[in-house]
Amino acid sequence: MPAGVEPLPDGTVTSAPGFEASGVACGVKPSGALDLGLLVSRRRAVSALVDTRNALPAAPVLRNRGLDTSRFQAVVVNAGTANAATGSPGVEDAAWMAERAAARLGLAAEEVAVSSTGTIGERIERERIARGIDGAAAALAPDRGGDFAAAITTTDRFLKHGAFRVPLPSGAVTVGAAAKGAGMISPRMATMLAYVATDAALDAETLARITREAADASFNRITVDGQMSPSDTLIVLANGAGAPLRGDDLAGFAAALTAVCRWLAVQIVRDGEGAEHAVRLLVRGARDDEEADAVARAVGNSPLVKTAVFGRDPNWGRVVQAVGQALSGRPGPPAEPGLRVDGLPPGDPRVADVMSLPEYEIELALGRGEGTAELFFSDLTHAYVALNAEYHT
Amino acid sequence: MPAGVEPLPDGTVTSAPGFEASGVACGVKPSGALDLGLLVSRRRAVSALVDTRNALPAAPVLRNRGLDTSRFQAVVVNAGTANAATGSPGVEDAAWMAERAAARLGLAAEEVAVSSTGTIGERIERERIARGIDGAAAALAPDRGGDFAAAITTTDRFLKHGAFRVPLPSGAVTVGAAAKGAGMISPRMATMLAYVATDAALDAETLARITREAADASFNRITVDGQMSPSDTLIVLANGAGAPLRGDDLAGFAAALTAVCRWLAVQIVRDGEGAEHAVRLLVRGARDDEEADAVARAVGNSPLVKTAVFGRDPNWGRVVQAVGQALSGRPGPPAEPGLRVDGLPPGDPRVADVMSLPEYEIELALGRGEGTAELFFSDLTHAYVALNAEYHT
Repeated sequence: MPAGVEPLPDGTVTSAPGFEASGVACGVKPSGALDLGLLVSRRRAVSALVDTRNALPAAPVLRNRGLDTSRFQAVVVNAGTANAATGSPGVEDAAWMAERAAARLGLAAEEVAVSSTGTIGERIERERIARGIDGAAAALAPDRGGDFAAAITTTDRFLKHGAFRVPLPSGAVTVGAAAKGAGMISPRMATMLAYVATDAALDAETLARITREAADASFNRITVDGQMSPSDTLIVLANGAGAPLRGDDLAGFAAALTAVCRWLAVQIVRDGEGAEHAVRLLVRGARDDEEADAVARAVGNSPLVKTAVFGRDPNWGRVVQAVGQALSGRPGPPAEPGLRVDGLPPGDPRVADVMSLPEYEIELALGRGEGTAELFFSDLTHAYVALNAEYHT
Repeated sequence: MPAGVEPLPDGTVTSAPGFEASGVACGVKPSGALDLGLLVSRRRAVSALVDTRNALPAAPVLRNRGLDTSRFQAVVVNAGTANAATGSPGVEDAAWMAERAAARLGLAAEEVAVSSTGTIGERIERERIARGIDGAAAALAPDRGGDFAAAITTTDRFLKHGAFRVPLPSGAVTVGAAAKGAGMISPRMATMLAYVATDAALDAETLARITREAADASFNRITVDGQMSPSDTLIVLANGAGAPLRGDDLAGFAAALTAVCRWLAVQIVRDGEGAEHAVRLLVRGARDDEEADAVARAVGNSPLVKTAVFGRDPNWGRVVQAVGQALSGRPGPPAEPGLRVDGLPPGDPRVADVMSLPEYEIELALGRGEGTAELFFSDLTHAYVALNAEYHT
């Protein structure tokens, strides 16, 4: 976190003034767990949205895209069914969800964003979702951010939410946030489902720009399984309950927004499906940043590297293989990559201890130029296979 | 196989006249299994070689590339250590292997191709390899093709070798072949280790052309784990013991060579590390063949699709997700892909039975144009994770 930015005790997505949230169980998850969440600003807010680059987006993504994404005041989210690959009936279902929530919230339908996460290829059951929306609207409260964070999860093992106090020259603002993982997490995506709610006062255009920058430096730098979800969505609501941002305020706020998004993104990797290790990979010395990014993704998505990380096996030849695959067809003779594991050379006996840690860092020096990239990735474990061979809500 | 091409009973890589092979144990594999193989033509042969596109090739690949690849008469292969990521000392080791084998075979060093397969990042132990080469040279015989096929394996569960009688207008020729898998099998590679030995009589230039075409239609159409090995090599030896190819002979021989390479390639997928299912994926209706290939590889390398195949889980939404990821950034609105499983629509109850078969076919219709692609892929299983989290010879 930037200097001075501090977590609030028991902070949630509704810690900033003027926000309310809730989470209820409407029976989409067979377990009976919370599966429908609402988040709303009770003050007039501006919003920004970044979503997936998957060419076959889920119905809620298609529905949100048709609107002015700077005017959202609320978000309705269901977990268990992704409403993806459902065609135009699915888009109608997504629009219906917004209408139902808007009616209960006293908003226009186009002021409500919709997200769905879960199994792809199944339509939502309107009867259950209607019961959920009505219950969630009745349960809205400033202290129900934790229920919202729980209601948006699928295979997540822990909740990913919190809030931070951000001191700025003109006064402090609060940034609350909640996100879910944990599979289909990946490259060149926009993000997973993540929601940020702040009392900062700024215009919609500025919010859109700094939200895009925050997503690029956070959710776009992680991978669990290399799979770009059709549902990825980040929504930021800023309701201006605090003093307007002036002068140096904006830079400080943008840095804090990026830091909060990175904090969520790293938690998503830690909670990657079946993950036992989260690795921060730094690639240096590529010909340019694009090449560094390609190398980082080839290493971080290699099933051979990921199983070696799981097995605590210092099989660095697999990293070299992935680097060579990424550089295939690129100009210039590649050097053997230089490698450090938490600063240690590969042959150091202490590397075995590092590989037992839940989190560590691998640095790769390519010696081809000045390009750099950073990527957080998780390992490939028996639990990932078990979850995904058997998961079908 | 093309009409008339028939497998020879107990056929091996040495079934064509004029070839000898052997396989011995020299102690590189800790298990004591065969780990050094020799294959030689006792008649003057022409050769063709196709190797990896990995930008950091293994030392034997670098060494072979420095030579006239149409003049190989023999191949020496060790399994257990890949001699990859070993720098210039590794290239010297590979050259030394060729010199040692050439001296025992009465050939020039540049007439001997070298392959190594196994762990990346470790140098070979010359003392063991020398013992192996000397023993293998002493054991050479026309009926030792099976030992050669065993000596080149690493994590393979079964041997992949055989021979075929190819009737041509001018008379029959024989095509013998041997290959190894089973991990680091993948995209845009040239091939795995595979060796073809035939008595067909043709010039080196023609052999190079039809070998390249055969590799493109076989080894380049498979994926186990999406990982392009730095050691991939296909070598074809043609010693002309049969009558010269004339007129229509060449087309028939080229078709047979491609068919034999496909036969080996499909076996490599069946024997993919930990594989329980081999899927033939056909993509139709892409804008062009390149787009069809990108979609096929996105589906065949998706860990979510691969775990669903393992779990016999008809989670077709994951196929749609992978298609959408592959089409990300490509022009033109994608349609929802049409899908058939062994000819059945996704909702057919018989699909469950199909998914229990060891091999089946998935057809994807994109409705965007005339582009097609074919890819054979295996599933992602607990055995894959176990093998690769613990494998470190």
